[in-house]
Amino acid sequence: MSAAELGERFQKQLDFIIEIDRAKQILRRTLLTDGSRRENDAEHSWHIAVMAMILQEHAADSLDLSRTLQMLLIHDIVEIDAGDTFSYDEKAQADKAEREAKAADRLFGLLPEDQGRRLRELWEEFEARRTPEARFAAALDRLQPLMHNYITQGAAWRAHGVTKRQVIERNRHIAESAPSLWAYASSLIEDAVQKGYLPE
Amino acid sequence: MSAAELGERFQKQLDFIIEIDRAKQILRRTLLTDGSRRENDAEHSWHIAVMAMILQEHAADSLDLSRTLQMLLIHDIVEIDAGDTFSYDEKAQADKAEREAKAADRLFGLLPEDQGRRLRELWEEFEARRTPEARFAAALDRLQPLMHNYITQGAAWRAHGVTKRQVIERNRHIAESAPSLWAYASSLIEDAVQKGYLPE
Repeated sequence: MSAAELGERFQKQLDFIIEIDRAKQILRRTLLTDGSRRENDAEHSWHIAVMAMILQEHAADSLDLSRTLQMLLIHDIVEIDAGDTFSYDEKAQADKAEREAKAADRLFGLLPEDQGRRLRELWEEFEARRTPEARFAAALDRLQPLMHNYITQGAAWRAHGVTKRQVIERNRHIAESAPSLWAYASSLIEDAVQKGYLPE
Repeated sequence: MSAAELGERFQKQLDFIIEIDRAKQILRRTLLTDGSRRENDAEHSWHIAVMAMILQEHAADSLDLSRTLQMLLIHDIVEIDAGDTFSYDEKAQADKAEREAKAADRLFGLLPEDQGRRLRELWEEFEARRTPEARFAAALDRLQPLMHNYITQGAAWRAHGVTKRQVIERNRHIAESAPSLWAYASSLIEDAVQKGYLPE
């Protein structure tokens, strides 16, 4: 079927769908729970979307689950161009917004204009953390690697010299949208320090 | 935080969330689009969930996107115990239902009873393909590997001796829920035969 037969709109949708396959090769610092290898963006996004389905009752505000899932599914697509920025890499955090905005222009720009705009807005909403859905999505985006780090005896924390103070600083916003999840996260952090996974 | 402090319900939710990390190690026959390695269930589930967001306008019936996304996100979790069953492996297809039902008992059984029942029902709905959401979800679950196979010059088809007749037989249900997606899939199949990726 030629591009003309497919129609320009459908062709753009297919171009985007094929392009985002690359998210499966964007490696994060976090290991899988068995420690065998680093996790990639596609796997991480899937995991936190399922977590939203299971943990939504812990959200402080009532949520539109569909918007939360959509936000989680697309929140890391910009990393196809911008790369994964480790939460505790302060140097890389400095120009993260600029790198990711450029990536969003190109990647969401592959889509038909209305859909590209919609995904861009969802991604910006996630980044801004001002709606209940964005705050809860951001909480899960932090909780999942924290759980993986705890289970792998602090592998990524130890590899990158991360301290307890940094972990609390970067994750404490979980408390805003899900107090019980932050209580759990705090208990993991304390226990990680006790067990020597994370320096005080 | 001890199990007693967490509460039994939350502990069950966490047990499930940690257990499903294993979906990242269930390999499918399909390769990534660059042919570098086989795709896993978590990556595949993420990809088709994003596809649902982009392609829902191609569905013949109006859809509840949230239910479609949830179905896609959990549809392969049973493979953690039952393994991936290749679409074209007729021997393995014979006891697939039995293996997967047993896996569903254990895996969804990790959750609090109400949530386990809900996910079990979503999975059974997907498998039965009787609702618009299930039919569209099943169409995407077939279209994505077909696209990957085409892009990788029929790698998984050739490795397993799959023929055009089998590909049409296993994928033609796409037409029920999304005629334009089936027209596109058919054009890929015809072109794959022309190019020698798929024996006639």
